[in-house]
Amino acid sequence: MSLLNGETIAILGGTGPQGRGLARRFAQAGLTVVLGSRTAEKGAQTAAELSEATGTTVTGTDNQSAAEAGDIVLVVVPWDGHGELLSKLKPELDGKIVVDCVNPLGFDKQGAYALTVEEGSATEQAAAILTDSTVVGAFHNVSAVLLEDPEAAPVETDVLVLGDDRLATDLIQELASTIPGVRGIYGGRRRNAHQIEALTANLISINRRYKTHAGTRITDL
Amino acid sequence: MSLLNGETIAILGGTGPQGRGLARRFAQAGLTVVLGSRTAEKGAQTAAELSEATGTTVTGTDNQSAAEAGDIVLVVVPWDGHGELLSKLKPELDGKIVVDCVNPLGFDKQGAYALTVEEGSATEQAAAILTDSTVVGAFHNVSAVLLEDPEAAPVETDVLVLGDDRLATDLIQELASTIPGVRGIYGGRRRNAHQIEALTANLISINRRYKTHAGTRITDL
Repeated sequence: MSLLNGETIAILGGTGPQGRGLARRFAQAGLTVVLGSRTAEKGAQTAAELSEATGTTVTGTDNQSAAEAGDIVLVVVPWDGHGELLSKLKPELDGKIVVDCVNPLGFDKQGAYALTVEEGSATEQAAAILTDSTVVGAFHNVSAVLLEDPEAAPVETDVLVLGDDRLATDLIQELASTIPGVRGIYGGRRRNAHQIEALTANLISINRRYKTHAGTRITDL
Repeated sequence: MSLLNGETIAILGGTGPQGRGLARRFAQAGLTVVLGSRTAEKGAQTAAELSEATGTTVTGTDNQSAAEAGDIVLVVVPWDGHGELLSKLKPELDGKIVVDCVNPLGFDKQGAYALTVEEGSATEQAAAILTDSTVVGAFHNVSAVLLEDPEAAPVETDVLVLGDDRLATDLIQELASTIPGVRGIYGGRRRNAHQIEALTANLISINRRYKTHAGTRITDL
């Protein structure tokens, strides 16, 4: 029996490449998806485009309404403003599973690098703010380009799910595994989220060197 | 043409599981390997055991003599004492390629977690001390159990090599690729070494959950 029992998946920051890519894949897997954006108009527009492109029904609205509508709420917003948005939406997110997908990265002429986060990681910052939500980290290292592939080719990568609540990590592993090619794998406790967020900087370096869209697979599993 | 042109590979801390495993694989690949240990006796003993087990000739001595003998020197010592040892061996390591393989991890009843390192990572600490060496990071995430497999089965994992010197990272990628199954892959600059060291904590969590010897593969490459 599926743990994903008719749950509504909300995606905050759902109009960027990563958010759109995840929305596309979840909608194609038959899940109910609500996109959130800074404005309801932008959310609705991107949702309409995704619905048209995939033959599914994605709805879109502002981040606050999306947070309210979701049973599982993915946070795919830029790092800049992450804490502020979550603080504002705390009432809507109380009692829900919140999946932080944010990578705190800086960029300079030498490429990407991991930023220092006072709480340790974006996921831990979310957990510090959302004290009445169940916060897990996931979807940090999945290429938006591959997710947005209109042919929906399998994404040959694993999604590491980080968290301290077994039911929540099991559920988000199952959510990740709805994407063809992806395995949702338990990746450790929330305190070990930082390096998975930061690993995205390495994948960006690899993409530059090898002209690819790198992901990771866990071996011997 | 091989970049590894008769170079001697020294392994400091070569009598622990990871050091022994790497020594075994490099010796089996036909490379010249010198093990270093805290005492010359221990180094010689482990080297004799490895030579016997593999039908190769591994030599062993103390860390200082091994550092002196090596053209490429791998640092596989415990994190505790890492900086102290490198400071002591700075004269022997000057002008050489030093490969830091150390993972600064803590352990408690919830498992492994990444320690905070003042310089950012073990690799960056090594670079801060060894100002006249070329320091790269590599071999952080390879299972010692798999490396030590007496059947020498291929190790299905990639080794990310981190560094700012292209010749050095190319050389260490080639060194990694001498292990059957392993691909040595450029993983980014030295400033992005922390998360690759810390990733070992996640692999330990995965090993506990799934009863395996997890490694990582880079996909789309």
